[in-house]
Amino acid sequence: MKQYIAQRIADLRALMKANHVAAFIVPSTDPHLSEYVAPHWQAREWLSGFTGSAGTVVVTMEKAGLWTDSRYFLQAGQQLEGTGITLYKEMLPDTPDIATFLATNLKAGDTVGIDGLVFATTEAIRLEKALKENHMELKCMDDPFEDIWDKRPPMPQGQAFVYELKYAGKSCQEKLADIRRIMEGQGAETLLVTALDEIAWTLNIRGGDVHCNPVVVSYLLIGKKETHYFIDLNKVNAKVAGHLKGAGISVHPYDTIGDYLANTDNVWADSEKTNYALYSILTSHRKHIIDRTSPIARLKSVRNKTETEGIRQAMTRDGVALVKFLRWLEQAVPTGKLTEMEVNRKLHQFRAAQDLYMGESFDTIAGYKEHGAIVHYEATPETDATLKPKGFLLLDSGAQYLDGTTDITRTIALGPLTEEEKTDYTLILKGHIDLAMAVFPEGTRGAQLDVLARMPIWKRHMNFLHGTGHGVGHFLNVHEGPQSIRMNENPIALEPGMVTSNEPGVYKAGSHGIRTENLVLTVEAGEGMFGRYLKFETLTLCPICKKGIVKDLLDKEEKAWLNAYHQTVYEKLSPYLNEEEKEWLKEKCGKLE
Amino acid sequence: MKQYIAQRIADLRALMKANHVAAFIVPSTDPHLSEYVAPHWQAREWLSGFTGSAGTVVVTMEKAGLWTDSRYFLQAGQQLEGTGITLYKEMLPDTPDIATFLATNLKAGDTVGIDGLVFATTEAIRLEKALKENHMELKCMDDPFEDIWDKRPPMPQGQAFVYELKYAGKSCQEKLADIRRIMEGQGAETLLVTALDEIAWTLNIRGGDVHCNPVVVSYLLIGKKETHYFIDLNKVNAKVAGHLKGAGISVHPYDTIGDYLANTDNVWADSEKTNYALYSILTSHRKHIIDRTSPIARLKSVRNKTETEGIRQAMTRDGVALVKFLRWLEQAVPTGKLTEMEVNRKLHQFRAAQDLYMGESFDTIAGYKEHGAIVHYEATPETDATLKPKGFLLLDSGAQYLDGTTDITRTIALGPLTEEEKTDYTLILKGHIDLAMAVFPEGTRGAQLDVLARMPIWKRHMNFLHGTGHGVGHFLNVHEGPQSIRMNENPIALEPGMVTSNEPGVYKAGSHGIRTENLVLTVEAGEGMFGRYLKFETLTLCPICKKGIVKDLLDKEEKAWLNAYHQTVYEKLSPYLNEEEKEWLKEKCGKLE
Repeated sequence: MKQYIAQRIADLRALMKANHVAAFIVPSTDPHLSEYVAPHWQAREWLSGFTGSAGTVVVTMEKAGLWTDSRYFLQAGQQLEGTGITLYKEMLPDTPDIATFLATNLKAGDTVGIDGLVFATTEAIRLEKALKENHMELKCMDDPFEDIWDKRPPMPQGQAFVYELKYAGKSCQEKLADIRRIMEGQGAETLLVTALDEIAWTLNIRGGDVHCNPVVVSYLLIGKKETHYFIDLNKVNAKVAGHLKGAGISVHPYDTIGDYLANTDNVWADSEKTNYALYSILTSHRKHIIDRTSPIARLKSVRNKTETEGIRQAMTRDGVALVKFLRWLEQAVPTGKLTEMEVNRKLHQFRAAQDLYMGESFDTIAGYKEHGAIVHYEATPETDATLKPKGFLLLDSGAQYLDGTTDITRTIALGPLTEEEKTDYTLILKGHIDLAMAVFPEGTRGAQLDVLARMPIWKRHMNFLHGTGHGVGHFLNVHEGPQSIRMNENPIALEPGMVTSNEPGVYKAGSHGIRTENLVLTVEAGEGMFGRYLKFETLTLCPICKKGIVKDLLDKEEKAWLNAYHQTVYEKLSPYLNEEEKEWLKEKCGKLE
Repeated sequence: MKQYIAQRIADLRALMKANHVAAFIVPSTDPHLSEYVAPHWQAREWLSGFTGSAGTVVVTMEKAGLWTDSRYFLQAGQQLEGTGITLYKEMLPDTPDIATFLATNLKAGDTVGIDGLVFATTEAIRLEKALKENHMELKCMDDPFEDIWDKRPPMPQGQAFVYELKYAGKSCQEKLADIRRIMEGQGAETLLVTALDEIAWTLNIRGGDVHCNPVVVSYLLIGKKETHYFIDLNKVNAKVAGHLKGAGISVHPYDTIGDYLANTDNVWADSEKTNYALYSILTSHRKHIIDRTSPIARLKSVRNKTETEGIRQAMTRDGVALVKFLRWLEQAVPTGKLTEMEVNRKLHQFRAAQDLYMGESFDTIAGYKEHGAIVHYEATPETDATLKPKGFLLLDSGAQYLDGTTDITRTIALGPLTEEEKTDYTLILKGHIDLAMAVFPEGTRGAQLDVLARMPIWKRHMNFLHGTGHGVGHFLNVHEGPQSIRMNENPIALEPGMVTSNEPGVYKAGSHGIRTENLVLTVEAGEGMFGRYLKFETLTLCPICKKGIVKDLLDKEEKAWLNAYHQTVYEKLSPYLNEEEKEWLKEKCGKLE
């Protein structure tokens, strides 16, 4: 791959020159500002060779740089080596942001190009403002990769399908009615929906356009009475067509959204979630825009009863698959032949054997020893390590079931550990438990609770730069908003019914990586002083490896949580296991004194 | 007092009618937006009879309401009883804010009056916008209390004095140079400073214009070269005049600031901290305004070495006074004659005997039993309770010393306690300790750490609605910014050198109130993963009552903190105590097993 990078950048520069732009910015998203995108939109990966899910390339006539976050520092460093592209590590004090980089490397009067279709409006406007302060300009260009990307993958062509009410719990009509009630309150006549998971949730439609994300590339316009769905008509089979018609939804070709929008007024469009090209259609036609957070993100994040029951069921099946896998792993490691990629294949097999399994919710991260320190590691034939009976295997994986999406990380001791590994493991578990035990008044934001998971490692001057928790969709994207648990402020409160991950970690390059992750459901804890209190119900059902625990580092309350958790795991999973598996699980769920 | 309220409101209404305003808003601040104000500006108290430091009265032709925060719910309820003024409890879900109240109680076309001199610009603009949405108008009027307030106290007339370099640690010239460097970076030619503590800090001047706050009512304009100080010239004695002249500062009469401002351009004026009348002079003359947070708040909050050494010294003397007082208290309670007001007097005596004592930093709160639940209780002859050898005395007090400002709360068991009192006491102590032990990476905000102090009570469905921590000035205001430790987001990071309170509490109306407060200094903890780590050094030196502690509710680490704290208290204070006092302190600082 690396040998092609220089030529690709040269081709882009030639096009930049022809368009009189001094720099071009390539983000990693699609026209729907998705986190994970179909191959057609993986231009940043094609251009740079960096395969991570998040990162932005900036190319000037002399320089090229990639900005990415801490999850990918190690991986990006390796993948960019020798490409001539410099790695810029986000969130570190000495790293310039892209606007500062441009201000330093370009000169007054220069123009910076972007493809407005793959840029969030807020980001484009922020960039434009920063450029203006340095007397530079932002210019929207046509997608340059149409010209220079040989054998570019086509637009995604997955089939859409109806997500049945027995899993969704609420009909498309009811959801539209909820949305329209909020629109009315804001004086909006039309709501523009561009986020693929919001569209899938609203319409009770799923698809296969994006790897691991059961969504359909499409746009949605919800009017006061009518609803317009913009989608490649080839994806709409008779059943889907019937479902849409029954809900009073008109279907239009995907690429007609722009024309339609040019004739629509009083549009609620969230500039954080709408691409700049589409948003500019509204502004250039001087339409009245209501720029607020889409109401769908919050509606979607609060699970109804069918959904919470579904995810509990899915967790049981996922847990059964994991227990079978972990038992197999324990037996397979001593053979000395097991590799990370074989771990991936085997875990996939156990999960695929479960009812309602639809695929993985993201690519499994199986990182042995130092590979565990590469936060989003994916084993390849070149890196595939053989597991030995010592050190840690970090295993982060998840599945899409029709009744829910899972995401779990376990860090498993394959044999003897160093004292440092044990201490790190226990401190991460301590933080995980402290967050899991939290009780908090209604209105509490994730940023307030985040410290609970970090304080044990902060006290040893360690930290992790990824979030502690992200929302998880319901047979939808494994990462979703609007809530989060992280160091940065996010004004969204945690509400009963939200599903969020709890995943502190610590990563030591060249040595080991540790993360312990469960999904938690926010539930009511009862009334109290000044109102209602909430807490977390841990949904994930899988034993937490006890081999790495330094008992003295956990207090009574934390040990009691772990023992109660393991008791629940055993009670919920054992009915689905054979005698040998039950015996195995009983030992893993045994009491920690 | 209460018998006059109706007449005063009637007088205000007559004036409102003459001015064609349907409502008038009376906040509790002065033209410098101070938290504590001179009697001349205590119009809200005069009008309503409510004596708390924070609260806003709104009067319409039919209704009158007072909005205040949780510290004052009980007190305001009692003081407003029978006055016809309704209490609106802020931060509770069912309480309308003032804009909503006005929208509900007035009609389209109505006008709302304010005195722009005592309104923050941001608040006035926010209010104006909310009124406009309901087709109402905001109107600035002359101060109505000049007409209706008989025997209104005059403008404050305290003398200014020079704050010596041996306490300030940095000269006025150096401070001005620091400020000008920041101004230059922002392209500002003039900085308007209106906050009294910012002016006092910048000029190394103190005064006696506001009860407990050693400030001088004045304005300051810092130009690129010249500095203009607007002050009642009667306050400037020869020494102060010499000090100012030496620093190149011109002195002008207080009320000429407006004329001066009308002729100044490129002014850095913080709309959060500038009154609306003054700000409007700039906008009406179409001056270019740089509206950013004043740079002085942060400069002031980060203590230099002289200041940190000073506050440590002040804490030792304050601790000695407190130990003498607490020993006296223990002996005096069994007499059955001691009252809350006598506690105040005696504590004052012990402190006043210390070197460099300049006065109290706020009015002492000595609340016995249920009075402890009134968060900002101040004993009066009517309420003055007699202390008995049972239950808790909550004692929140502080002093101004030339070398630092103190603020401490202890909740002292005077005898037997109920199980509930003991549990509550221990949980608050647990939260206090958990926050005191925090270690955190540089860049951490107070809102991230706040939960540490609250989680122990949140787990029992209790909470407190005041902040966990506020900044404390250096021989200046006991409440200062910009940092805070509270549930609400505040983007300011905690920096080495900042002094902040750590004061969780819990309040049960009619029963008891508990708060444990120390001041902490943010200090460096060392380098670590991704940068530098910080921690808190507890500055306050005074034993924490052990009688209420339920040992089982504290873990090993928390007990170790308390024992180490008590050891430090004993080591630092005992050199200044006589043998009996030492003996007494030794027992109070004894080890908790």
